[in-house]
Amino acid sequence: MKTAFFGDIAPIRFEGPDSSNPLAYRWYQPDRVVLGKRMEDHLRFAVCYWHSFCLTGSDPFGQATFDRPWQGGDGLAGARLKADVAFDAFELLGVPFFTFHDRDVAPEGADFAESLRNFQVMADVLAGKIEESGVRLLWGTANLFSHPRFMAGAATNPDPQVFAYAAATVKNCLDVTRRLGGRNYVLWGGREGYETLLNTDLRRELDQLGRFLSLVVDYKHKIGFDGTILIEPKPKEPTKHQYDFDTATVYGFLKRYGLEQEVKVNIEANHAMLAGHTFEHEIALANALGIFGSLDVNRGDGLLGWDTDQFPNNVEDVALPLYHVLQGGGFVNGGLNFDAKIRRQSIDPVDLLYAHVGGIDICARALLVAAEMIESGRLAGHVADRYAGWETPEGQALLKGELSLADIAADVERRNTEPRAQSGRQEYLENMVARYL
Amino acid sequence: MKTAFFGDIAPIRFEGPDSSNPLAYRWYQPDRVVLGKRMEDHLRFAVCYWHSFCLTGSDPFGQATFDRPWQGGDGLAGARLKADVAFDAFELLGVPFFTFHDRDVAPEGADFAESLRNFQVMADVLAGKIEESGVRLLWGTANLFSHPRFMAGAATNPDPQVFAYAAATVKNCLDVTRRLGGRNYVLWGGREGYETLLNTDLRRELDQLGRFLSLVVDYKHKIGFDGTILIEPKPKEPTKHQYDFDTATVYGFLKRYGLEQEVKVNIEANHAMLAGHTFEHEIALANALGIFGSLDVNRGDGLLGWDTDQFPNNVEDVALPLYHVLQGGGFVNGGLNFDAKIRRQSIDPVDLLYAHVGGIDICARALLVAAEMIESGRLAGHVADRYAGWETPEGQALLKGELSLADIAADVERRNTEPRAQSGRQEYLENMVARYL
Amino acid sequence: MKTAFFGDIAPIRFEGPDSSNPLAYRWYQPDRVVLGKRMEDHLRFAVCYWHSFCLTGSDPFGQATFDRPWQGGDGLAGARLKADVAFDAFELLGVPFFTFHDRDVAPEGADFAESLRNFQVMADVLAGKIEESGVRLLWGTANLFSHPRFMAGAATNPDPQVFAYAAATVKNCLDVTRRLGGRNYVLWGGREGYETLLNTDLRRELDQLGRFLSLVVDYKHKIGFDGTILIEPKPKEPTKHQYDFDTATVYGFLKRYGLEQEVKVNIEANHAMLAGHTFEHEIALANALGIFGSLDVNRGDGLLGWDTDQFPNNVEDVALPLYHVLQGGGFVNGGLNFDAKIRRQSIDPVDLLYAHVGGIDICARALLVAAEMIESGRLAGHVADRYAGWETPEGQALLKGELSLADIAADVERRNTEPRAQSGRQEYLENMVARYL
Amino acid sequence: MKTAFFGDIAPIRFEGPDSSNPLAYRWYQPDRVVLGKRMEDHLRFAVCYWHSFCLTGSDPFGQATFDRPWQGGDGLAGARLKADVAFDAFELLGVPFFTFHDRDVAPEGADFAESLRNFQVMADVLAGKIEESGVRLLWGTANLFSHPRFMAGAATNPDPQVFAYAAATVKNCLDVTRRLGGRNYVLWGGREGYETLLNTDLRRELDQLGRFLSLVVDYKHKIGFDGTILIEPKPKEPTKHQYDFDTATVYGFLKRYGLEQEVKVNIEANHAMLAGHTFEHEIALANALGIFGSLDVNRGDGLLGWDTDQFPNNVEDVALPLYHVLQGGGFVNGGLNFDAKIRRQSIDPVDLLYAHVGGIDICARALLVAAEMIESGRLAGHVADRYAGWETPEGQALLKGELSLADIAADVERRNTEPRAQSGRQEYLENMVARYL
Repeated sequence: MKTAFFGDIAPIRFEGPDSSNPLAYRWYQPDRVVLGKRMEDHLRFAVCYWHSFCLTGSDPFGQATFDRPWQGGDGLAGARLKADVAFDAFELLGVPFFTFHDRDVAPEGADFAESLRNFQVMADVLAGKIEESGVRLLWGTANLFSHPRFMAGAATNPDPQVFAYAAATVKNCLDVTRRLGGRNYVLWGGREGYETLLNTDLRRELDQLGRFLSLVVDYKHKIGFDGTILIEPKPKEPTKHQYDFDTATVYGFLKRYGLEQEVKVNIEANHAMLAGHTFEHEIALANALGIFGSLDVNRGDGLLGWDTDQFPNNVEDVALPLYHVLQGGGFVNGGLNFDAKIRRQSIDPVDLLYAHVGGIDICARALLVAAEMIESGRLAGHVADRYAGWETPEGQALLKGELSLADIAADVERRNTEPRAQSGRQEYLENMVARYL
Repeated sequence: MKTAFFGDIAPIRFEGPDSSNPLAYRWYQPDRVVLGKRMEDHLRFAVCYWHSFCLTGSDPFGQATFDRPWQGGDGLAGARLKADVAFDAFELLGVPFFTFHDRDVAPEGADFAESLRNFQVMADVLAGKIEESGVRLLWGTANLFSHPRFMAGAATNPDPQVFAYAAATVKNCLDVTRRLGGRNYVLWGGREGYETLLNTDLRRELDQLGRFLSLVVDYKHKIGFDGTILIEPKPKEPTKHQYDFDTATVYGFLKRYGLEQEVKVNIEANHAMLAGHTFEHEIALANALGIFGSLDVNRGDGLLGWDTDQFPNNVEDVALPLYHVLQGGGFVNGGLNFDAKIRRQSIDPVDLLYAHVGGIDICARALLVAAEMIESGRLAGHVADRYAGWETPEGQALLKGELSLADIAADVERRNTEPRAQSGRQEYLENMVARYL
Repeated sequence: MKTAFFGDIAPIRFEGPDSSNPLAYRWYQPDRVVLGKRMEDHLRFAVCYWHSFCLTGSDPFGQATFDRPWQGGDGLAGARLKADVAFDAFELLGVPFFTFHDRDVAPEGADFAESLRNFQVMADVLAGKIEESGVRLLWGTANLFSHPRFMAGAATNPDPQVFAYAAATVKNCLDVTRRLGGRNYVLWGGREGYETLLNTDLRRELDQLGRFLSLVVDYKHKIGFDGTILIEPKPKEPTKHQYDFDTATVYGFLKRYGLEQEVKVNIEANHAMLAGHTFEHEIALANALGIFGSLDVNRGDGLLGWDTDQFPNNVEDVALPLYHVLQGGGFVNGGLNFDAKIRRQSIDPVDLLYAHVGGIDICARALLVAAEMIESGRLAGHVADRYAGWETPEGQALLKGELSLADIAADVERRNTEPRAQSGRQEYLENMVARYL
Repeated sequence: MKTAFFGDIAPIRFEGPDSSNPLAYRWYQPDRVVLGKRMEDHLRFAVCYWHSFCLTGSDPFGQATFDRPWQGGDGLAGARLKADVAFDAFELLGVPFFTFHDRDVAPEGADFAESLRNFQVMADVLAGKIEESGVRLLWGTANLFSHPRFMAGAATNPDPQVFAYAAATVKNCLDVTRRLGGRNYVLWGGREGYETLLNTDLRRELDQLGRFLSLVVDYKHKIGFDGTILIEPKPKEPTKHQYDFDTATVYGFLKRYGLEQEVKVNIEANHAMLAGHTFEHEIALANALGIFGSLDVNRGDGLLGWDTDQFPNNVEDVALPLYHVLQGGGFVNGGLNFDAKIRRQSIDPVDLLYAHVGGIDICARALLVAAEMIESGRLAGHVADRYAGWETPEGQALLKGELSLADIAADVERRNTEPRAQSGRQEYLENMVARYL
């Protein structure tokens, strides 16, 4: 350990399901082979700099509660200490990846130039730590939402100078992400939306956003970044309406600007919930549309209307999403980023570890469940049987467009018979899933 | 009047804002010219057969409360009586349009052939009444959700025979809609979705739906139907998830299947709310994406989680949506359909009239407000000023893609200045709108 | 089996966790002793007549999908067949209890007198079947919401004649419940609320409801009914606002009318969710207020805004509620009623059994988890430690009111020290719970 | 003006409905007599220190955007400047009242003693300004939620020392409120609730809260404070669950601890919405229960799940609440506090004025509407007619408990007739209300 932040806690190790050690894994064994691949390679866990090392426990009604020694004092010294603590955490947890915003790792400077210098200094620091620790960068992203300059959006700002500022920021962040070996680059449009339609030109803002994304994609190719560009959908919060509402909306946007082959989605559980969807719905849809990229794993609270970003702690909540990830072929560049924050009252450093240990173990156990569901093939088999009629020549003729509407109608009128109803078997299937849990 | 259903109520007339007659219009004057067009031609009101003449006041916890003499007895006789009462209502209200589902106007028969015969008999009846009354058909649609055969979807059913049955049904309904001079044909996918992902093949169902819509579009052209094909988005209810979630989702779907030039949206206020949007958002977005078609005007209850389909009764709720309709050029084939039902305790025939009189007057008053907002130009002017920077050569260079990300970044680094923040003026603009109300 | 409804399905038996038989229990062993009591006596499962034998699969947008032979034909003959099938189901499932509304078991007659005769005939039938089968009545209740006469409420109706009608109905239902050995009598105020405040006198309606409940309590004592009177809270649906919103509201109502020693609550999971609460919150609060009675176990869908009444299928969703039940001393007269319905597409008789088998097993497994949490004492111990300061003399002095506000302030000013913050340990505790699951 | 903060803006004056001056009142005329009372005396507007002079435009995803010169630098100097600007605003707006938290007006010190000294210094300052300006204090309150010491609650903290600290704080704040002539003292339990039941002893926390409130009430009497003690209900945010969930919950709590004659409610529009209620519901219920006190007027966004605290801008949203206030006899000690904040992008000082001018005008116009509804008596008359049966001897006999359940049943059985249904006339009444708007 580089720092004393976590005291004398030893690295978290696998001790098996019977362990009562709150700082041991009961399910997560990186090297255990599941469906022919190491658990670590399936899950590709990442710890999130933002939530774990930048937040202070403040909320809209209360001040900071966490004691984070790197927050005060000189910016770069603080950033270095923060990086040391972060890598201490990564190593204690034994995770293979981390993720960051530019502003998480380096302080805002007095002007653009100083901010950039700060970021480049810290990029050097991080490069060294990556080299040293073997912990890799799952994705980088630029914070285009915290500073007042972005209050009315970044790419969708009414002021083209803010667009330019944001573009320059992303350019540099993409450079650093590439240099640090990042596997993906994420765009989350926290302020790309509106507070009121009364002052908003919707069409214009969508075109600005389309242009911005095209610029990013072009630049990615120019510099030979071989990672994936990801959009992270969210319907609202902080803004009243965000343009990247959900996976379906992002897909339509990508099609509109001809980018559906270039950009994929980073789906977050809590964002899916805020958009009125389950996490697994968003994954299944992204698979269906060919734009599945990566996951921000966390949990929301269905009774609260904001992004609570809690650590996952229910196996079923994660098992069905992972089942869909596996059905889609698993992660390529993506992974499981803990976009999750400890509660405001969890003020001890060890709380950060408890939270991650719990989250990692839930996901590991969920992977085992999902793998068993895949291996048994019963669920997929049931689904295939249900649609078997579509694989017959008659079904295929309908689907392929070999018959016109009038042809079909003539045939129905001729036969004049009622289709036979079949049970949807929802409770049976839910019981089947419960069996694996 | 053909029937005694409404007793001796006289046709509803305009009496002006000071009238205290609950069966008079205070704002709706069909011939009043607003922004160069008759009020009637702006608003294109339609009364909805389904809500007003088919519902019985039942709800998930209670039986029918309305006395509707046409519901019992012989199917076709009941259908004829229902048509007589419906046209009595249209004439009492003085509305120019109505809308229907096939099953609203004609009873389900013992088999497909009989159902079709029933529908054709009633199409003749309706043709006569249209001729006689001058009331026109805004749109027709097929009920592909009430009968048990559609319990697992129509186009998206796991059974291709149900797909075929639905296709044949739409073919006939489109034929009748064309014959009756319908200006649009609507598809509402009430069961095109899923109850549980566990028994669902999402990708397959989307492809089925794409095929179905393509068949309909091809057939429209084949028969020379010159109305508009409309999809009505709804996110959920009755199903857990519906594929036509909202305008953005429908747009992505249309793009995926190459139908974005062929199909537009019929936006409903309450459906927008259930999807997490305002009514005006959906309209503004449809305008921006070029797929605005028609409106189902009603109101939901933000504290209840289902489609309450209440009559509109707040001017502001309608004025902003109409402002966006006017900004987009107004209705072409579309109009304002009252997709609204009287409450279960509103058991007297006159309650149907009160409801429509109130709704029509709110919309008429809202049109005057929206027109004043358009005419003053202050709101639009404020928006244009806010984005003025994008009209400069520098702004246009960014938007048109004349500069690469690296070019933009180089320029930002060189200038190294902070963009100047400007107030969003939300409260000022809200006050401005309140002024028109 | 009295009927052929379920075909040749054999009674459901315990086969252990490894069984793959979808019609066997994996966890539910009635005689297994948990915390010193038989599982059956802890859980006191009841099957619900209403959901399982009266519903038809209709929803607000669709017709009946279930084939229920008792629905057509002569009322009492149908009611007898329904009772035979219901008791076949109770016996197949091996549950100790059932629950009913008066209208579930006997058809509405042409007038009050005939309805009452029907009910009394069926009470005789049920008495015989209870005797024969050993299946007991957990609670009875009167349906005061389905018939149009109750459209504006029962006790809270603006018409005192409806109040009287409802009172007479409850009198007879309480008589039958007593005669059949019911352990509780439930009042669910589905229409005791309002659709609009515009036509409602809130204070008057509350007083009516208070009078009604007092009448019922007096009558209970008069006839020597030794069961518990229960109110079932629900915030809305079918009405916009229901007076028995949640446990806290019911408590205030009981206090207002002096009934807090006489009446307890029957808490439903899905109703809790609609009111913005977790199921365990409502149970913990009822325990704290001394009004915990019984449970309607089911699950809602946090993404849908209505009462979905699904069968429970997630162990955690039930384990925490049962933990609070056990902490409160367990059920006395209450039990676990499956206020849950199979989905509309679950059209086969066997789907009714799958649903109950799954629900029963989830609850049995949850009981084991809750019992382990109780036995280990770790969770309760953590809570006790957290509040230990209140057990000191200083803490007790504050709590008992021995010091005035001025005394306390003087002491704080004198000491002038900052209290010491302690971690809330939420993630640690969540992990601890996950460990038991 | 004491400061240059608002530049050379002149005091806001009434200019009548046709004024297009955005800094003039179109409806608010303090001296206009409505229902026999001056408008100012009806509405009793208060500007809120917290929202208008303490917030900075930060949100959970973004930094401060407002330039508030008093925020930096020395605490007390800043507090003095803030007070000068606040009173400048009060005078520009011409409002009769303001409201504050202790921490809004005076900075937290290094320890309890210093915080108290700061507060007392500022109390002197405020006393002078009140004297000078004639602007009065509607209510004071203590901030028991922002400082980390209150992260686990104030009165409901697991640590009795925090309870004591909070008690001492309230004692001093009540002293100052009394000294400054405050008409009410408010308790908002922002952290009196829980984040997770896993670490919470619900019953114990309720007893702590009951004790706390009793101490406050006793002290109020001891010092002869003749204002009203108010609880402000809120269901959640910042905590997951707050004990003062809504009016009904607060009523039950007051009854439990024998305080229902001593304490009333301060109802906020946005809090009502978060609890699943309309604003008018909460007011009507508080009237019915005899605990109506004061209002926090603002508006929420039904599509966002958090407290948006926007300024009211829809007449109907305020007219119905004011109708219920007037029906209950109007405000006694209470008033209309703008618990509302300008949007984050409203960065200019003048935006604060626009917001209040709009809010004040909406409320003034709503008062005129509500007064017209009262004067016409049509709505109240309709309600009285609907319940007329309860005023008959038969109705009264039922309500007064002169008949037992058995008596009533015997009578119903004897008569054996069906009550006659009457239309609820919801749409008619909604149209009637729309007429006044």
